[in-house]
Amino acid sequence: MTTDLSIEGRHFRLDWHPPESVGHRTLARGLSDLAAMGAKPVAAFLSLGLPRELTISANSTRSWVDRFLNGLLALAAEHRVPLAGGDLAESPVAVADIVLTGSVPQGKALLRSGAKPGDCIYVTGSLGGAAAELAALGASPASFAKSTSPGAASPHLFPQPRVAQGVWLRKHGLASAAMDLSDGLSTDLAHLCKESHVAAEVMASALPLGSGATLAMALHGGEDYELLFTAPASAKLPRSIKGVPITSIGRILPAKAGREKVSLRMETGAQPLDPQGWEHFSARK
Amino acid sequence: MTTDLSIEGRHFRLDWHPPESVGHRTLARGLSDLAAMGAKPVAAFLSLGLPRELTISANSTRSWVDRFLNGLLALAAEHRVPLAGGDLAESPVAVADIVLTGSVPQGKALLRSGAKPGDCIYVTGSLGGAAAELAALGASPASFAKSTSPGAASPHLFPQPRVAQGVWLRKHGLASAAMDLSDGLSTDLAHLCKESHVAAEVMASALPLGSGATLAMALHGGEDYELLFTAPASAKLPRSIKGVPITSIGRILPAKAGREKVSLRMETGAQPLDPQGWEHFSARK
Repeated sequence: MTTDLSIEGRHFRLDWHPPESVGHRTLARGLSDLAAMGAKPVAAFLSLGLPRELTISANSTRSWVDRFLNGLLALAAEHRVPLAGGDLAESPVAVADIVLTGSVPQGKALLRSGAKPGDCIYVTGSLGGAAAELAALGASPASFAKSTSPGAASPHLFPQPRVAQGVWLRKHGLASAAMDLSDGLSTDLAHLCKESHVAAEVMASALPLGSGATLAMALHGGEDYELLFTAPASAKLPRSIKGVPITSIGRILPAKAGREKVSLRMETGAQPLDPQGWEHFSARK
Repeated sequence: MTTDLSIEGRHFRLDWHPPESVGHRTLARGLSDLAAMGAKPVAAFLSLGLPRELTISANSTRSWVDRFLNGLLALAAEHRVPLAGGDLAESPVAVADIVLTGSVPQGKALLRSGAKPGDCIYVTGSLGGAAAELAALGASPASFAKSTSPGAASPHLFPQPRVAQGVWLRKHGLASAAMDLSDGLSTDLAHLCKESHVAAEVMASALPLGSGATLAMALHGGEDYELLFTAPASAKLPRSIKGVPITSIGRILPAKAGREKVSLRMETGAQPLDPQGWEHFSARK
């Protein structure tokens, strides 16, 4: 089971994001959590808190909530996960909590805790594309309204959770640890290292950058919803899984003196890679 | 599975409700949903969206969220339901979505749809007490702060979900239909009648009033979290179940001309009992 809150002003803006995108992203966050464990989605439950005006359809225009549900249900249909229940309430701000149940054979779920020194670190797809798209859209917000359905590549508005890839990894038993990249590589890899009691080194030159992404976006951008996983160096991984490229981006090292340090190797040498992604309630601003 | 959103300004006020009460009520709403189906609670999942200041403990004062969790976990311990997961995010307003899983033998869940003409209508406990307590507290808001743990009777701040009574009813197979009274008798009974395609008559003089409650509070107040259920007139119901009184308050009638009408019988005659409880996004203000 997994639950994910999406909150107006925090995860989306009513004046920016098309409602279809908010619905899609709400479900994508939950599906990505299941993908990270190699679980198959079983059913979704949605709790919606909405300001009243979002439920009203004026003239021939569909209401915000109708369009939100269209976006959510389109992605649900793609992954064959039924919306099985939920709750609806009035709220001063729009909030959507998505709950997903998934199934995985007992003891076979992919976890964050199994990475071992010597393992290679991999990611699916590319990184930083969501941050790059958001930066581009934010620079001319009128362009948000143009994307109301998943296009060829719209990693911010319509991210594609890697459910099939997670299930493939679990079935083939190749991954020693896995998680999804929701908060940004620097933050998420630090979590994986902590759970596995290991350190890690990322090769800057190996990172697969999304369209328009800078290195900083790939490292810290977040919301790419790709999978981050580790596998023994001896494991033979394909170049792509179910049509999505797999890239080796670094390796797992022993934690020295108990410190689960993540470093970034550049041509000029290695430097610490401090978490700069999305940390809730961290000391940072 | 059941999900329930609790939203600041809608379901509670930060300047009124002690955090322990908000935590208790958040879980109580979910447990009451399970009680209504005769299900045993299995596990709880909590998604919390909070303004940052609610997570900060100043000096020796515990933070709002710590006290919220104390209230929630105390009720969870009472019902032996583990808090098994959830999500935490920053939010401009405080929102809590509680997800509960419950178990019930296949095909045995209590439903809203089984009431038959001739059945008697019952409620557990008393009605209107939550509304009466809220009215009293609202008249002198300083008194809110005095109740930080479940007292002898605090139906608004610390409602007691009727889990044991729901399980008892399900095990004994006496109830033809059941639901919980969260929105108010007039609203909830209308839902039950609609689902069962029946009409109903409530005896005003038979209603068990909570402490300080008026008839209007008992009919429309909401948030009592008692069980409303029906049983054949031939069923022998005890006067109380697991220490909670059971009261017959009326009977189920055939729906005339397809209208699932609820009426209230007073000494002076019967009158329509229109839903005046808590309807989300209804046409009313």
